[in-house]
Amino acid sequence: MKLYNWQFAPNCRRVRMFVLEKGLDLPSIEEVIGSGLRLLPQYIETWPHAMVPMLELDDGTRIGEAMAICRYFEDEFPDPNLMGRDGREKGTIEMWERRAYDECMIGTAEVFRNSHPEFVDRGIPGTTAKVPQIPALIERGKGRVARYYQKMQDQLRENRFVAGNRFSVADITTLCAIDFARAVDMSIPSDCPDVARWHTEISARSSAARSV
Amino acid sequence: MKLYNWQFAPNCRRVRMFVLEKGLDLPSIEEVIGSGLRLLPQYIETWPHAMVPMLELDDGTRIGEAMAICRYFEDEFPDPNLMGRDGREKGTIEMWERRAYDECMIGTAEVFRNSHPEFVDRGIPGTTAKVPQIPALIERGKGRVARYYQKMQDQLRENRFVAGNRFSVADITTLCAIDFARAVDMSIPSDCPDVARWHTEISARSSAARSV
Repeated sequence: MKLYNWQFAPNCRRVRMFVLEKGLDLPSIEEVIGSGLRLLPQYIETWPHAMVPMLELDDGTRIGEAMAICRYFEDEFPDPNLMGRDGREKGTIEMWERRAYDECMIGTAEVFRNSHPEFVDRGIPGTTAKVPQIPALIERGKGRVARYYQKMQDQLRENRFVAGNRFSVADITTLCAIDFARAVDMSIPSDCPDVARWHTEISARSSAARSV
Repeated sequence: MKLYNWQFAPNCRRVRMFVLEKGLDLPSIEEVIGSGLRLLPQYIETWPHAMVPMLELDDGTRIGEAMAICRYFEDEFPDPNLMGRDGREKGTIEMWERRAYDECMIGTAEVFRNSHPEFVDRGIPGTTAKVPQIPALIERGKGRVARYYQKMQDQLRENRFVAGNRFSVADITTLCAIDFARAVDMSIPSDCPDVARWHTEISARSSAARSV
């Protein structure tokens, strides 16, 4: 088994943190990022989806998309459970996991990719086509992240963890997304004390430190 | 159990088609769209995520996000299986399901929401904040959908269904996303005959017609 990886990429960190929470060793890791923050051409040639992370199994099966890879590990290594034990819990966890991705991760990616000088003409991932940056997305992305912080303050005021009273994959995606936001200067606002409290607690887990 | 719904919205159709593929009757449906293609204020008041679909269970649990709702149904009604039977299959199906969403559904939504006169200052869903349309996203969205069609032509040339040799939730999301693209004038290109062949086959399922 091999994980094709870009160490900085928050979507890769989601997988690494998930695997560590399972109590597993990280799989063999191949770093596929080259100069100018570009995926290596030889990687894109064999994996035209042109994204990381990607997990290659020993039988040759290749799985892309962070949550799809986590789903594989959840099935193969059910304990500890990170994605829910019954329908109600599975649905609730996935709802919060998707929000962390759609609102915070994508919002931050809009800011990052449409402003960073290394991403000129690479406004979205997953393609080698020329996709111009759209400066208006910087403001839109910042608004999305700001609203997400407020939403999570409401949720974490009432709940210890993102999806309720126990740790789940929703906490993993949220941590990776918020740390990405913090890295591009969108810190946890001072009027979100419960997000800060939660962030301190989750960051203290060994999986958080070891996945960076 | 009640499904809060907007009949036209492709994300709501994903849930309805999924439920029908399970051989279930649709749950009680409450339409929450009002004039000007806006969610009813009384809905947003009780559900500040301000999105559809949302499933309310009899115990009061509320689950948003189409795939989270489907995950609930998959757990409660395992047959027929639509999300994978082992880790390898679950991962593969989720990978293709996510691509249909991220590339085709979101690409089409970028075109739709940033061009439609009813969505001025409502550039993204899930908020009542003023979010200006960004005309440059129309072109970007069209490019995403065009590339997605080519990717699916490659996949469906080799496979009967989106995620391999059997029908799955990946086909549902792909159909709903492609029908959304077709509705906003991004038809299946003539150089994608296998996408057209697949579309004909999936559209002939009773769940496809009954979910519209």
